[in-house]
This record gives sequence, structure tokens and C-alpha cells, in this order.
Amino acid sequence: MPPDVCTLPASLRHVHVTEVGPRDGLQNEPVTLPTADKVALVRSLVDAGVREFELTSFVSPRAVPALADAAELVAEVRRIEGLHLSALVPNERGAERALAAGVDSVVLFVSASESHNAKNVNRSVADSLAGFERIARSLEGSDVALRGAIATSFGCPFEGEVSVAAVGRIAQHFADLGARYVSLGDTTGMATPPLVTERIEHLRQVAPTVSPTLHFHNTRGLGLVNVLQGLMLGVDRYESAIGGLGGCPFAPGASGNIASEDLIYLLDELGLETGIELEGMIEAARLAARLMGRELPAQVSKAGPRLATHDADRTLAARG
Amino acid sequence: MPPDVCTLPASLRHVHVTEVGPRDGLQNEPVTLPTADKVALVRSLVDAGVREFELTSFVSPRAVPALADAAELVAEVRRIEGLHLSALVPNERGAERALAAGVDSVVLFVSASESHNAKNVNRSVADSLAGFERIARSLEGSDVALRGAIATSFGCPFEGEVSVAAVGRIAQHFADLGARYVSLGDTTGMATPPLVTERIEHLRQVAPTVSPTLHFHNTRGLGLVNVLQGLMLGVDRYESAIGGLGGCPFAPGASGNIASEDLIYLLDELGLETGIELEGMIEAARLAARLMGRELPAQVSKAGPRLATHDADRTLAARG
Repeated sequence: MPPDVCTLPASLRHVHVTEVGPRDGLQNEPVTLPTADKVALVRSLVDAGVREFELTSFVSPRAVPALADAAELVAEVRRIEGLHLSALVPNERGAERALAAGVDSVVLFVSASESHNAKNVNRSVADSLAGFERIARSLEGSDVALRGAIATSFGCPFEGEVSVAAVGRIAQHFADLGARYVSLGDTTGMATPPLVTERIEHLRQVAPTVSPTLHFHNTRGLGLVNVLQGLMLGVDRYESAIGGLGGCPFAPGASGNIASEDLIYLLDELGLETGIELEGMIEAARLAARLMGRELPAQVSKAGPRLATHDADRTLAARG
Repeated sequence: MPPDVCTLPASLRHVHVTEVGPRDGLQNEPVTLPTADKVALVRSLVDAGVREFELTSFVSPRAVPALADAAELVAEVRRIEGLHLSALVPNERGAERALAAGVDSVVLFVSASESHNAKNVNRSVADSLAGFERIARSLEGSDVALRGAIATSFGCPFEGEVSVAAVGRIAQHFADLGARYVSLGDTTGMATPPLVTERIEHLRQVAPTVSPTLHFHNTRGLGLVNVLQGLMLGVDRYESAIGGLGGCPFAPGASGNIASEDLIYLLDELGLETGIELEGMIEAARLAARLMGRELPAQVSKAGPRLATHDADRTLAARG
């Protein structure tokens, strides 16, 4: 009998979940939601206990029409008290707009692989990093925090493997700019438990001042598997999208982000605190599906909570 | 920094995967596949390296019309060499039919919860166990092995929680009947990592001669998460269905069994041997979807293998 190797670290009690549905969830969807619908979805999530949102991206409205209402959305959601709102910014102009709109954090993003960064922002990784210096300076004197996000942290759809050193160097750069939180994005669902372990252990060595955030996609079905691995390593910050919104342009029909309500279900069952109620998240997921006009890939919203029992006389029995 | 608590046991190298698609996958599907289609699916799985099948169930054809061809299917698949074929049997009559058809193992099944057993086989758990004695005696003198399967091992859709003691008692009973393998069925997707740990540790205490097999459904999105937990506990036997075939009568739209190809992907990435090739499994999953005439819930068959790269100039870039 093997030793009981797989308990969560005793120090892990509370897990921070950032909702990225309004940003990463919506930017790849074919439907563009009206701002009022986005606000309704955010309110539903707030009712469930969500307090941290990656709400939008201050990119070119032409490049990402689904997020063209960035400033208006921040202004609307800002009226709800007690939230931490972050937004992606690609450049100084975006940072100015985000500051003016009233976000709490700006997220600077770059890919760990050259070809993905070129496709995404038409720049080399080095040029992206150089640009971050100017954005960081523009934040000086404001209350707005700087966060980092590293896309293709676990693999690149164009290049394949991404070295852990490349991810570490970018994380160090973000640490030097004063970022406390750096998110490792699993952009096209290439993360696996061994890669999670390797990357987290490396980051703790080369960028010890940074708290890593894990951002998985369920493209190949391992999203929550990688969360369990992250939890066992003591990582306490995750990003997810309600209903599993989003998708991958290279995998039609495959899942997008890990679903927030499925994540909350897992964390609940592991005895971890999030401040977020599963029942409310299921309601929010059902609202998201109605707003998007399609079935979303998440599971708990379809199956219901674990102990929601059925009437034995009114249902067919399952075998297996 | 927490200690590196989450490595797989060093003794775990090879994992046995039993394909249950033709049985558990098909019995709840609205479409009844012709025998020739089932054989084609099995051949595709054999081409990928699958050698163990839970092929069918010798239940009443009226109760489960989708499996009415049990004897014919076993006879057809028996012509492929080198396979281990098992089939569920509900009673002595079923055992006789399974023996005559030429299976390698018969699987006796009972639910750990009274109400599910009543709904499933119209009998108390005690009556099911008593019946097993007669079936076991009828196998004496044959080469056919006896296996056990415990439905609702992690929770019951009618009663809620199922005690670990109830599962342990049934496993002991199977051990007394000479079963070497006992499968814990997560019939409606209620398993969680802590329950997996609790049940496996208990079984090792009360039924140490038995090798537990884990049979998860992905109804609430945790199927592969529970596999990772099982692997960390050293469990080396899993059951899965190609494409994630199957479903749960209480959760329309929710996933069924864990998908065999997604399981193989996970095991590959963890460095575990199965003798099964992912590429061949993806082909089998696509065949399964064509035969069923619907999209199946599995992921890897849609996204493709992890390192299948895309042409950067021909595809849209993803962010996040």
C-alpha cells in the first residue's frame, strides 16, 4: 500500500477565484453580448459571492468587437461595491483608457512563444516586454496595481512545447515591474499535471515574490485535473469562466475555459473556502447559457449539486 | 513552499484500462446500434491497442433492448484473438448465457444503496448477494472468472450519501466468492477526490485480496480528477467508454462515462503505460460519434493531440 501521498497542503484553506467569463469567455464567442446583458451576468455572479473579475480588455474595438464596450462596462460594474476589477491592456493607450474607466488592476499580457505573440499582438516577446516598462511608469502615482499574464505558458498551438525557462524569464520581468500576481495562461489547453508541477516549482525559484495564478482551458479535458495538481502544490489562485464560456479557434466543439461553477464544486468538495456559493453559480451558469443562446460545456449546471436527490419512483434507474 | 507531495507512487508503471463503451456506454443511449456497428467499433478499439472489454450485459432483452444481441456480439468479437471479454450477468440464467457465449469473466453487480438496487434489479441488496452464491457455484469447474461491480459506490441519486462501510461489506462478499477484481461504479457522477481516498483506503483494509477498479462518470466534470486521485493512491485499473458514451437519466445533457481517449491522453502525459495508442483512440472516438449520429462529450478527439501544431499564418490567434 503506497503512503498517503495525496493530501492538500495544510496551509491551503482559502482559494481565490477570479471570474474571467466577461473577458476571456466572451472574446472568442461568435455572439457579442450587449453591455446590459454582461452587467446582468456580473450581478448574478456577485450574488453568488464572486468578488474578483477580469472584466474586459482595452484592446482595439476593431480587433475584438465583443469587448468594444470596455469603458462602459467598467463604469456600470463599478457601481457594485466591494469588487476587484481588472482589465487587460495591450499598450499605453489601453492603460490610459483602463485607468480612466476606473479599474483596480491592469493586466499586461504577452505569450511565452514568439509565434503566438506575433499573431496576437504583432510584436516580438522582447518588444512586448519593453513596452511594459512604459505602461508601468504610466501607472506610477495611481492606486492601480499591475498584474502579468503569460499566454501559451504550457504549450503553443504553432510551436508545440514552450520551455519553462521562457515562462520563468517573463515572470521575473513582471516581478521586476512590481507585479504581485502573474497568471499562467493555458491558452489552447495544453497543460498537464507534470507541466503544472514543473512550471510552479520553477516560478517559485526564479520569481519568489510573485504569487502564481493558474488559468486553465478544458480543451483536452484536463482543466480540473490540472487544478487538483495546482492545489496539491499549494497554488491558491485560479481563473475560470462561468459555464465554461470561450473556446479555442483551433478546436471547434472543444471546451473553452474551465467552468467557474465546476471549479467551485471541486473546491467545495475538497473542503476549501472560496466565499462563493455553488447554487448561485449554477443560476449564473444557466443565465450565461440563455444569454449566449447555446448549451455551454460545463457539467454541474446540467447535473445539479451532488446531493440533489431524485424520486426513485419517478425516474428510470441507471446501471453502471 | 509546500513539500512536493504529489508524485505518483513509483510502483505505478502500467495502468489497465477496460473499455466499457459497448456495455455501459450503449445501454443508456437512445439509439440501438446494430451488432455489426458494435463489432466495427470494437475492431477500431482493438487496432488502437485495447485488449480488455466489458462487452455487454446478459440481462433481459426487454429491459435493455440496446444489449439484446449479447450472445451474438460475444461470438463475433470472440473471433479476434488476445482479448479479455467480460459481461454483466444479473442471475444464474444470465450466467449460463454468458458462459455459453464464451466470455472470459462474468461481472456480478449490485448497488451499495438499497433504493438504487431495488430500482435496478427489483431486489434488496441482501437478496442480490445471496443470489451471487448460486451464480458462483454455477461457475465452478469452468475457466470463467468472477468479478464484482458495486453501483452507486460514491453516492446514490435517490438516497444521497452512501456509507463507505456498505461498499466495504459488498467488496468483502465479492472477495469471499473468489473475485479478484471489484469495480467501484460512480453511477451518477457523485465521486470526489476525498471519497476516492476514503473508499480505496477502506477497501484495502477490509478486502485486501481484491484489486479495486475505478469506474467514474463525468456527470459533474470530475471524472478525470478522480482518476488522478486514484492514480496517486496507486490504483492501476480503470473503466472508461470511448467518446464518453453513455449518460445519466437524471442529468440530460450531462456527460456519461469518462472518455477512454481522454483517459489515455492523461495516462500518456503522466508517463504511465497502457499499451493503447492515443491516435488510434481518437479514430475510434470519431467512429463512435458517426455511429451514434451525435457529438460525443469527449475533448481530445475534437482538439487533437497536444502537440498537433497549427499553421500560424492560416489561423486566428487566441488570447488568454
